[in-house]
Amino acid sequence: MERVLVIGVGFMGGSFALALKNHGFKGSIYGYDINPESIKKAFDLGIIDEGTTNLSDIKNYEPDLIMLSSPVRTFRYIAKGLKDLVDEEVTITDQGSVKGNIVYELERILGNRYVGGHPIAGTEKSGVEHSIPNLYEGKKVILTPTKNTDKEKLKKVESTWRMIGGIVEYMSPELHDHVFGVVSHLPHAVAFALVDTLIRMSTGQVDLFKYPGGGFKDFTRIAKSDPIMWRDIFLENKENLLKAIEGFQNSLNYLKELIKEEKEEELTGYLREVKTKRMEID
Amino acid sequence: MERVLVIGVGFMGGSFALALKNHGFKGSIYGYDINPESIKKAFDLGIIDEGTTNLSDIKNYEPDLIMLSSPVRTFRYIAKGLKDLVDEEVTITDQGSVKGNIVYELERILGNRYVGGHPIAGTEKSGVEHSIPNLYEGKKVILTPTKNTDKEKLKKVESTWRMIGGIVEYMSPELHDHVFGVVSHLPHAVAFALVDTLIRMSTGQVDLFKYPGGGFKDFTRIAKSDPIMWRDIFLENKENLLKAIEGFQNSLNYLKELIKEEKEEELTGYLREVKTKRMEID
Repeated sequence: MERVLVIGVGFMGGSFALALKNHGFKGSIYGYDINPESIKKAFDLGIIDEGTTNLSDIKNYEPDLIMLSSPVRTFRYIAKGLKDLVDEEVTITDQGSVKGNIVYELERILGNRYVGGHPIAGTEKSGVEHSIPNLYEGKKVILTPTKNTDKEKLKKVESTWRMIGGIVEYMSPELHDHVFGVVSHLPHAVAFALVDTLIRMSTGQVDLFKYPGGGFKDFTRIAKSDPIMWRDIFLENKENLLKAIEGFQNSLNYLKELIKEEKEEELTGYLREVKTKRMEID
Repeated sequence: MERVLVIGVGFMGGSFALALKNHGFKGSIYGYDINPESIKKAFDLGIIDEGTTNLSDIKNYEPDLIMLSSPVRTFRYIAKGLKDLVDEEVTITDQGSVKGNIVYELERILGNRYVGGHPIAGTEKSGVEHSIPNLYEGKKVILTPTKNTDKEKLKKVESTWRMIGGIVEYMSPELHDHVFGVVSHLPHAVAFALVDTLIRMSTGQVDLFKYPGGGFKDFTRIAKSDPIMWRDIFLENKENLLKAIEGFQNSLNYLKELIKEEKEEELTGYLREVKTKRMEID
């Protein structure tokens, strides 16, 4: 692997580029983004060696690996652009938080050049200037090969993630979206809704944001995440997320009922079980 | 002030004692707890100078300040025990997370010896062995005086908090419970319900707790908090908390609707507004 192209030069794209550079990758890293500012910043910071806002330019870069790192809803559109711009041997993969339909649609567009991936890493920060070279160190990276996936290309993607510290695990696209719909997309939806609650419940008399102690700040840190990225994730994993929200609404309604009816014993049991289970994952 | 008694020798009681010792308090610190283990640990760690599991013993300590630091639902019971055990001049205050009715009931039992307080500080940890001497440094401490509160005792409580780094602010007991019902009790209820969701949605096939990335861990850290403490807070601030939960359910339902109907623009607007508002409090 000598020439890597990052599509979407933001926090995730920039971190992938930096991670390569910091783990002995000696080839060239190219960037494509619709925003010229991002390309300029990435170039000035030494994150990419060359960049463009014009997709057809990437033909000249002759990449052997392309990493899609833009918001997930842009993938189809970009894939259509890439289709005839790059050769059959090029490996195209992604860092998208939703797999499901996207994987099958990208396969339809790009053929077996595409391998679906999702590193379980990130922060609430966005923007290429926040990129972190060791973002993936010790983090799970889910790959979602299908029966069509090219074995060689899969191996190449897998070894690239291993090189920069990722721990690769396989899942079907469907299972991936179920699991991350619950453990990641749901908590983000809940955090956004919690901040919205404070906006709506604040009045001229009381600005609730003046009292951010008591866990609120930590709890809603993820609500600072990029709106476009999360809009895309929410819409793209709609079915699983709606099911997860309903599961959560049931849990919250049950807790609410225990409080309303002052069921001391059941309430203690509920909180104890949750605490025990939560402590297990530390 | 020469003799301080901490009632409830756990994380909050221990931190208050340690804070005093670390900020030049040269008097004696006594502890009362129903659990002999807590007393022993606190004594061994040098957090208290003497302790007991027998409430009537505290007569001999002749405290001039008593800090209630046990779960809020124990306050009434303890106040009844204290009523005739200590003199009229003794100042009795607390670190409880709920004020409202409790303040008026404690005033009824203890007269104007009582001053309501709530430091906006804490962690998800419990147990006296985790006590932190600088827990209150730069943190808000809400005092909830009423028309009956003794001015001298209020001043004494206020200067004690100032001495250990707290930033004192006044609120009515009612406003306190409304505000913290939304900004603290609600996030805790939501975090507990979120962990419960993963318990309920995990199956023999998929253990969702195996994938705690994507914000879930940070987001649910507060679900490790002490179950008894939080059961008491939830029940004691029931009315405000139920209103806050309903406010949150409305916000979440609205977000769910935007996702279900794929209202891209409104969804982006919602997430943007939330992000902007959340960034303001950092």
